Amino acid sequence: MVSPTIKLNNGREMPLVGFGLWKVNNDTCADTVYNAIKTGYRLFDGACDYGNEQEAGEGVARAIKEGIVKREDLFIVSKLWNSFHEPERVKPITQKQLEFWGIDYFDLFYIHFPIAIKYVDPSVRYPPGFTDENNKVTPINVPLERTWHAMEELVDAGLAKSIGISNYAGALILDLLRYARILPTTLQIEHHPYLTQEPLLQLCKDSNIAVTAYSSFGPQSYNELDLQKAKDTPLLFDNKTIKEISDKHGKTPAQVLLRWATQRDVAVIPKSNNQNRLAQNLDVCSFDLSDDELKRISALDQGLRFNNPPNYGVPIPIFA
Amino acid sequence: MVSPTIKLNNGREMPLVGFGLWKVNNDTCADTVYNAIKTGYRLFDGACDYGNEQEAGEGVARAIKEGIVKREDLFIVSKLWNSFHEPERVKPITQKQLEFWGIDYFDLFYIHFPIAIKYVDPSVRYPPGFTDENNKVTPINVPLERTWHAMEELVDAGLAKSIGISNYAGALILDLLRYARILPTTLQIEHHPYLTQEPLLQLCKDSNIAVTAYSSFGPQSYNELDLQKAKDTPLLFDNKTIKEISDKHGKTPAQVLLRWATQRDVAVIPKSNNQNRLAQNLDVCSFDLSDDELKRISALDQGLRFNNPPNYGVPIPIFA
Repeated sequence: MVSPTIKLNNGREMPLVGFGLWKVNNDTCADTVYNAIKTGYRLFDGACDYGNEQEAGEGVARAIKEGIVKREDLFIVSKLWNSFHEPERVKPITQKQLEFWGIDYFDLFYIHFPIAIKYVDPSVRYPPGFTDENNKVTPINVPLERTWHAMEELVDAGLAKSIGISNYAGALILDLLRYARILPTTLQIEHHPYLTQEPLLQLCKDSNIAVTAYSSFGPQSYNELDLQKAKDTPLLFDNKTIKEISDKHGKTPAQVLLRWATQRDVAVIPKSNNQNRLAQNLDVCSFDLSDDELKRISALDQGLRFNNPPNYGVPIPIFA
Repeated sequence: MVSPTIKLNNGREMPLVGFGLWKVNNDTCADTVYNAIKTGYRLFDGACDYGNEQEAGEGVARAIKEGIVKREDLFIVSKLWNSFHEPERVKPITQKQLEFWGIDYFDLFYIHFPIAIKYVDPSVRYPPGFTDENNKVTPINVPLERTWHAMEELVDAGLAKSIGISNYAGALILDLLRYARILPTTLQIEHHPYLTQEPLLQLCKDSNIAVTAYSSFGPQSYNELDLQKAKDTPLLFDNKTIKEISDKHGKTPAQVLLRWATQRDVAVIPKSNNQNRLAQNLDVCSFDLSDDELKRISALDQGLRFNNPPNYGVPIPIFA
């Protein structure tokens, strides 16, 4: 089974269902990626910050070596971390990330956050996280436009086929559209039934920007991080509406949550360390929710955002 | 009675309570401003878009001529409209607005919205509103940074003592702070107990940017505009919590709403066409709400925003 694709604004195709590498452990990452490819996954959503690019690349290399896929069958995604926003740092770090992956281009390379912080040399700490050598969050004065133009040069140089943005609010996207020479193909955002973000989806639709959801299962992803707000929120898997609908369709709650997103034209990148669930997550375009079911799920919206830097002690309120 | 002032990040003082000129009719505007000055108002919050700068200026001129105030006692505010965002248009339109007012500098000049639309010549239509000659909303590709740098030149040229931003979300402010040579002194936003915006207030506090609230009475301001969302929302004046607290203090609900804001260090710019209420609105720093009362009012928050361009047919979702 392989995911259907959606056409990006540059004519390229992006799988609607991919595999997210956030919190995939280093010791299992290569096998997980390799098995995911065997299962049919073609899109892998990585990032400098996830700290497992090398292992992910090993899984990819093995699958290619065994002839399961060719490089061009895959859609490999990574992200520019906050400490590399200075224009002159963008190309070198992208090249380093490509080396880690063992590939010579990314299919999609995102600005991970609209946040610019002080550089940490990769030889000192990689991934650098949110703090500098003195264990402080140190913002730097690099406007997003400068970083975006450096991202555009990655496309010119063939290092990224597409470029995108992540964790951008609407007002930033509107400003980006005013200065972009190369449009972002994709916006990646937190998106689940507790945070449905209709106005932002509409803006992206009107602007021909694809949307990829992270944290499609809501609080689930954040419990592992010990985030109080997530602990205080009932799991979507246990939600009455979600359970009713999944029972009716004979699908798991996870499948229903992913299908709700994909029927909204939102791409998804679930992660699983379990082979069975991995296969289930990919099989989420083989059934359809009714309009009424979609509406009932969307009505769970509470504007509840988990991945907000102030929630984990980073005083940069990008969603204020 | 004169309002207390707050100190801006450039050392200047801004009255905490001012008079808002939005929706002040042209035929009464000069008298209203004149009477407001006699009552003790010193800050007048105008805008190109309000279409009454000339009349407001007449009221000011009369008060100055009669020796009630001097120019330097007043704090006159206006705003750059969306159709004048191209850098080369900023100074000429500011000079024209100063001519309308009959003064030679603004105390504070804001970017009215983070929206750039096609120029309409003032000889064709003034104020231009949201649409161009063909009755269409036509965005143009002028990034906010370019407009901000033109605003900074107004300060250099002495045409504005301070510059500010209005209707900016947090992510835009963070980006602005990365490129600003001259900091905004003030952010003007919709702010009332249905839309308390704590994270944005905190960002401004941390960034030393003063906050001015518009629409302090919530839905009240929008009923005149026939906005369905406002009609569907119970008036804050009728809210049980607000009434209880105002009864207890022997103040009007309006006074309580304004005091709630000013005790949060948020400046206010109520408007009234009624001489009695005009005086009451200015008298909102002579009593204090308790911490508990402030909290009870803040707990009315619903994240309910009325002044969102899509609400009135302008498809530019700056708050998405």
